[in-house]
Amino acid sequence: MTLLEQMGQKAKQAARFLLTAGELKNKALLEIADALIENTDKIVEANAQDIKNAETNGIKKSLIDRLILTDARVADMADGVRQIAALPDPIGTVLQGNTSSNGLKIEKVRVPLGVIGIIYEARPNVTSDAAALCLKSGNAVILRGGKEAINSNKCIADIMRKAIAKAGLPEDCIALIEDTSRASSVELMQLNGYLDVLIPRGSAGLINAVVENSKVPVIETGVGNCHVYVDDSADIEMAANIIYNAKTSRPSVCNAIETILVHSSVAEKTLPAIKARLDEKNVTLRCCERSADILSGVELANEDDWYTEYLDYTLAVKIVDSIDEAIDHIAKYSSGHSECIVTSNYSNAERFTAEIDSAAVYVNASTRFTDGGQFGLGAEIGISTQKLHARGPMGLNELTSMKFIIRGNGQVR
Amino acid sequence: MTLLEQMGQKAKQAARFLLTAGELKNKALLEIADALIENTDKIVEANAQDIKNAETNGIKKSLIDRLILTDARVADMADGVRQIAALPDPIGTVLQGNTSSNGLKIEKVRVPLGVIGIIYEARPNVTSDAAALCLKSGNAVILRGGKEAINSNKCIADIMRKAIAKAGLPEDCIALIEDTSRASSVELMQLNGYLDVLIPRGSAGLINAVVENSKVPVIETGVGNCHVYVDDSADIEMAANIIYNAKTSRPSVCNAIETILVHSSVAEKTLPAIKARLDEKNVTLRCCERSADILSGVELANEDDWYTEYLDYTLAVKIVDSIDEAIDHIAKYSSGHSECIVTSNYSNAERFTAEIDSAAVYVNASTRFTDGGQFGLGAEIGISTQKLHARGPMGLNELTSMKFIIRGNGQVR
Repeated sequence: MTLLEQMGQKAKQAARFLLTAGELKNKALLEIADALIENTDKIVEANAQDIKNAETNGIKKSLIDRLILTDARVADMADGVRQIAALPDPIGTVLQGNTSSNGLKIEKVRVPLGVIGIIYEARPNVTSDAAALCLKSGNAVILRGGKEAINSNKCIADIMRKAIAKAGLPEDCIALIEDTSRASSVELMQLNGYLDVLIPRGSAGLINAVVENSKVPVIETGVGNCHVYVDDSADIEMAANIIYNAKTSRPSVCNAIETILVHSSVAEKTLPAIKARLDEKNVTLRCCERSADILSGVELANEDDWYTEYLDYTLAVKIVDSIDEAIDHIAKYSSGHSECIVTSNYSNAERFTAEIDSAAVYVNASTRFTDGGQFGLGAEIGISTQKLHARGPMGLNELTSMKFIIRGNGQVR
Repeated sequence: MTLLEQMGQKAKQAARFLLTAGELKNKALLEIADALIENTDKIVEANAQDIKNAETNGIKKSLIDRLILTDARVADMADGVRQIAALPDPIGTVLQGNTSSNGLKIEKVRVPLGVIGIIYEARPNVTSDAAALCLKSGNAVILRGGKEAINSNKCIADIMRKAIAKAGLPEDCIALIEDTSRASSVELMQLNGYLDVLIPRGSAGLINAVVENSKVPVIETGVGNCHVYVDDSADIEMAANIIYNAKTSRPSVCNAIETILVHSSVAEKTLPAIKARLDEKNVTLRCCERSADILSGVELANEDDWYTEYLDYTLAVKIVDSIDEAIDHIAKYSSGHSECIVTSNYSNAERFTAEIDSAAVYVNASTRFTDGGQFGLGAEIGISTQKLHARGPMGLNELTSMKFIIRGNGQVR
């Protein structure tokens, strides 16, 4: 039995305990929050080692920014855990139920998934965040963070394991894989029999590697090649405002837009107004030939641009001749995350919401709202761009399964 | 582009049409039912070729039984399609919705999954059954049946494609892979970008091969290593009756039981009563040493027996000393399908339903009730034994996904 199989077996055992842990889960979460605060110095010290290694290895500054933990960031992590403790427990909810004609009482009840694997990259705060969401929803978790954050992650996981043991939970409810080789990651993806689901959080490269190699069920998260389509009946100021917000309020996140599609009949009037707003933030525009003819100081887009999630102050621009062409473009190039139509035409709004096959489809609002907090889910483990099990922002409910409980008095078939 | 990729592309295009097909779907289903009846002779003739090939190849009789189509079986297939047409359309159901404080109207709506792949074995009736369920739930389907039924399947698929075209749907809503090599099956399992989900229906071997090779999301179905635990407080007659029903009413199906666990304090009284009932059907008992000491004319079980889904008139028997031991045994050996406790003890009933992590958990009723029809789902595409997306009997709702639709009037974040 490999080390990881042993870890899987312990996690599976812990998951059985969690099935009936009830209020102990919240007690454990509060212990975690307290322990994170108490051990702030220790965490920041372990993190300093990661930062030092990253600098030695010439890791780029934006990555180091994500890696760094300060007293304030540790306090945020503890706060996040407390907020999760305060959410309602999803487990045990009766989703539906009925009594059949033979007297069987059939209930469909929400239960934990079991053991969840999380593969992530450089952000060490994911360690406490993901563990807390899994624990709250009654799941054991096996964490596999990036090698850049290994010292921070080991320190945080160790603190969490001790804290939950203090609350009376098996410490194996939370486990961290300390081996950050590619081999350990692939082994986790194929830990069938122990792992019920694997959730990758991070770059498109990571997510693709997981989809490619995993033999356990996966929930894909996060890649957002999002679009705004400006219909011929759009309010121009509203369109410019939504595009400005959806592109520039936080370009590095998955619900930011990457391409706008503008109806040809309003392009000459609309595009300069949009560009004027985007110029405030020096957004680079990558334009189709027709839109490049209208605008000056822009770059020409190529086929790759339509597929690209820039995650930066860059936006692709394309003129289309109809809503059909806009819908076709999105069907071909979108990652299925979030799309918006700006329109004042009722039937175009209805067509867009019906025919666009993405997790979140907007009429006259910024795609930046695609977020667990904004949608009222309380907390979020990620945004699913697949259609199985969960789609869009995933909260605690999306970390659960269900089972049927049938009570009888001797019925046979 | 390979043939299968072309098929995937056409299916994806057809799936876009289905997003808004509404009532056309029912029209197409009724056309299918009529066309199956009209072409009964043709279907039976194509099937005769499969039967002839099977006999030439020395295929065993039980398999030929599953393969054979008569006029009556074709009529049953048509009936099945009509029943599916009569079910409520799951698509467009608003699952939840709210208006947020900034005025955004957020709705979560049921939508089709997209393109579903079904891999199955020798039963040609699955061809119409699975296609009708997928179509009703707004999905395009790519069917990959077993080589034994290829002539029947080609004939049925051809009839269905023509029928739905007559109703105004793209014929590519239904496609059959005619190449029954292992290569085509593996290619289907890795048709990412075209296939939204793959559902294997058939033997444990098929399902394991799909889990092992698939890169698209899979819903595992069907393997049922089911248990009855006879508690020390059980009504003996009820226990014997439930065990008799769950083992012998239809041993070849996944919700039949394979192992019974009997509390040691009632074993001497209970086991002979159970055996007396099972003797009516000549059930072979494979017993642990302690139960073999009580019963005569039984075989000794080995470790493999606890894992085995006999699908036959064979039952494994084990004596346990506590409900804890019963729960541990099930946690270790069960496939997570259906388990039952026979008890008159309230707290043991509650413990069993809470701690057994299977799709269906029964108190005092036969596991044979785990079935879409019995649970009121109307029709069933299979029984999921995984925890992601769907668990237990899967009806039309389990063949759907959801999306968020957000209506605003210019909101930005």
